[in-house]
Amino acid sequence: MDLWVTEYQTPALGFSCKSSETLRIEKTPFQDLAVVVTEQFGKMLLLDGMVMTTDCDEFVYHEMIAMVALNSHPDPRKVLIIGGGDGGALREVVRHPKVDKGVLVEIDARVVQASRDFFPQLACSFSDPKAELIIADGIKYIKEHKNEFDVILVDSTEPVGPAVALFSPEFYQSCFEALKEDGMLAVQSESPFFNSEVIQMVYGGISRCFPLTDLYLANVPTYPSGLWSFTVGSKKFDPQTIRSLSNQPLKYYNESIHKAAFNLPNFVKEIIGLDV
Amino acid sequence: MDLWVTEYQTPALGFSCKSSETLRIEKTPFQDLAVVVTEQFGKMLLLDGMVMTTDCDEFVYHEMIAMVALNSHPDPRKVLIIGGGDGGALREVVRHPKVDKGVLVEIDARVVQASRDFFPQLACSFSDPKAELIIADGIKYIKEHKNEFDVILVDSTEPVGPAVALFSPEFYQSCFEALKEDGMLAVQSESPFFNSEVIQMVYGGISRCFPLTDLYLANVPTYPSGLWSFTVGSKKFDPQTIRSLSNQPLKYYNESIHKAAFNLPNFVKEIIGLDV
Repeated sequence: MDLWVTEYQTPALGFSCKSSETLRIEKTPFQDLAVVVTEQFGKMLLLDGMVMTTDCDEFVYHEMIAMVALNSHPDPRKVLIIGGGDGGALREVVRHPKVDKGVLVEIDARVVQASRDFFPQLACSFSDPKAELIIADGIKYIKEHKNEFDVILVDSTEPVGPAVALFSPEFYQSCFEALKEDGMLAVQSESPFFNSEVIQMVYGGISRCFPLTDLYLANVPTYPSGLWSFTVGSKKFDPQTIRSLSNQPLKYYNESIHKAAFNLPNFVKEIIGLDV
Repeated sequence: MDLWVTEYQTPALGFSCKSSETLRIEKTPFQDLAVVVTEQFGKMLLLDGMVMTTDCDEFVYHEMIAMVALNSHPDPRKVLIIGGGDGGALREVVRHPKVDKGVLVEIDARVVQASRDFFPQLACSFSDPKAELIIADGIKYIKEHKNEFDVILVDSTEPVGPAVALFSPEFYQSCFEALKEDGMLAVQSESPFFNSEVIQMVYGGISRCFPLTDLYLANVPTYPSGLWSFTVGSKKFDPQTIRSLSNQPLKYYNESIHKAAFNLPNFVKEIIGLDV
């Protein structure tokens, strides 16, 4: 008998994986959490029915949310991650040779626990000497920190449930204030094919706070449409220019991908109001 | 009541679209053909259960299979398309200002008919004065033509059913011989995430015939993993360099996408044996 786990990526589009085992299913104080074993992608973490990460393709998202800002900032010593409780983005941060400290602020301790229990290749980051794990509301945390971080990464779920406030202009202003005078923010900003209004909201919100705003793309097969966007806000440094050392070895990111990721298809340029 | 059409992109991965209507379902002499109306992507053409094209994302595949070779060849006057019976690649070819003649050789007349009946934005190409439509076996056709074409595009299905021979070294040698002395071949070569062995077969086969071989990528949300590869074989001209005029306007392709598409993630470089 085949068991299938289906994410409805939109109300009209289902993404179904053959599954051999359900490792965890629970209601946390913040969301529904599940970990299943899929034949196609290995272990898969879902929150509120949406695929967050899998063994087989986690490298794309985690490398690409972290490495672009880390490598375009000349001296990314202190890095803050909001969300990202699986630890994957933190893994890339603490591996970076210039980083002294990676602080991860996750609201839901059960996400961290699921990662510790089932995703050792992600959760390994929590025990790194450079890492600090804080279970707290990222919105509140960031308001209490000013002029402190070189890079901030926002590794959120979609703008539903606990993540809604992470897509607001007020939050981006708080990020701006928590960054040092040459700091850089990178956030996941959904699919250009399915979520153009989210991209416009994020790009517009960050543009209103930061002098430099830019969008880049990566290919995540378990995310809706397979094409994912990230938006960078920078106070000083052009995020398209590489200035610091790379982690090695990586599976997706390299120097030419860093630059190529900012080259947008015409329909994506149109979403953010750029000339085609 | 919701009706759903599911493509099993792999034996362990289903891609399901909510569907309001089945416009056609038939067994042609070569394959199973269906046209359905989906809520997410508009009308969708399926062959042997695999999504071939949809109203909403056809632009990516058709622009990207055609424009890279057309724009890197300095004088693409005579172009041959093998397969591509929906007419989408032919549309891009005959719109190109340097093209005098676009010949399409499709084995299955019922694919052409389905396009004429349901995809007018693709089938419009058949009535272009530059276009010639031939219903014939592409393998046989290409063996009978030598030193004739500037560019050949192979717009095939997956290497199952009638398309198997379109992935063979003998076929690439026939393409080489059908091209003029500075000609260029571009073929669809499947997903780097799911079909690495197909990419190796295509890249290896083309490399054995052509002095220049290169791989480039594009994002097609209705194809497995959303990331799709194309392989170019060239007798003389570097396919990464733009030499002739572009079609305008386009929805995906632009000059920076042309160059960026050749920048490969490390795991894709490894598939084709390039240093990372």
